[in-house]
Amino acid sequence: MPECVFCAIVAGEAPAAVVAETDDLLAVLDVRPVSTGHTLVVPKAHAARLAELDGALGERMFALGHRLARAAREGGLGADGVNLVVNDGRAAFQTVDHVHLHVIPRFAGDKRAVLGRVLRRRPRTSDGAAALLRAALQD
Amino acid sequence: MPECVFCAIVAGEAPAAVVAETDDLLAVLDVRPVSTGHTLVVPKAHAARLAELDGALGERMFALGHRLARAAREGGLGADGVNLVVNDGRAAFQTVDHVHLHVIPRFAGDKRAVLGRVLRRRPRTSDGAAALLRAALQD
Repeated sequence: MPECVFCAIVAGEAPAAVVAETDDLLAVLDVRPVSTGHTLVVPKAHAARLAELDGALGERMFALGHRLARAAREGGLGADGVNLVVNDGRAAFQTVDHVHLHVIPRFAGDKRAVLGRVLRRRPRTSDGAAALLRAALQD
Repeated sequence: MPECVFCAIVAGEAPAAVVAETDDLLAVLDVRPVSTGHTLVVPKAHAARLAELDGALGERMFALGHRLARAAREGGLGADGVNLVVNDGRAAFQTVDHVHLHVIPRFAGDKRAVLGRVLRRRPRTSDGAAALLRAALQD
């Protein structure tokens, strides 16, 4: 199994709830979500930092995040807002050294809950969210 | 003057420290920066939410943010990391109803300072940062 957890997921050697897949991107639920439906858009090719990520691939990563943001708000998940976030480098809270875009659905009044989960990341399951996002992407 | 502050900046009717400009994007320093060099990439055309933002324009917004992230790390600003952030909707902390991408240079050990500034946004000047970022974009 690859040492990088995202490379292992891309290779099918680690489990993940898949939300969307393209030729060069995989979107999966974060296993330690800060909100329901918290999704990561991951380039399939390994790049540790933004500086190593191909520009066109970065644009496609963002484009899929943009589509997921719409899906979170307009689909069954019914989000009231979305944060799109890339943390590049340890100083910026990057914890997995493989570039990824966080798509964080937000719900009115969830500020304290989300900040609490940001400070204390824990595994949570929310498989229903993946199905809701997949369905909304197809609309 | 347009009611939207970003439209006013784009129209040249409100002041801003310009970091970069393209046909359809303007990058300016945030007047209430959470770190030195905190920059906003703003589409010139008004779109309040991601759902109203043209997909291709969103990709270009991100591409410029990607370039700025490199400039912040590789240029004279000497950032150790970068957060790229879009807050879409009030529930996600969006405060100006005109889509924008935050490019937040991060420096080792700045976590408390940045979180403090996120909680208490205040005007600060950092014009030197705009010049450093402009120079690094041209390298």
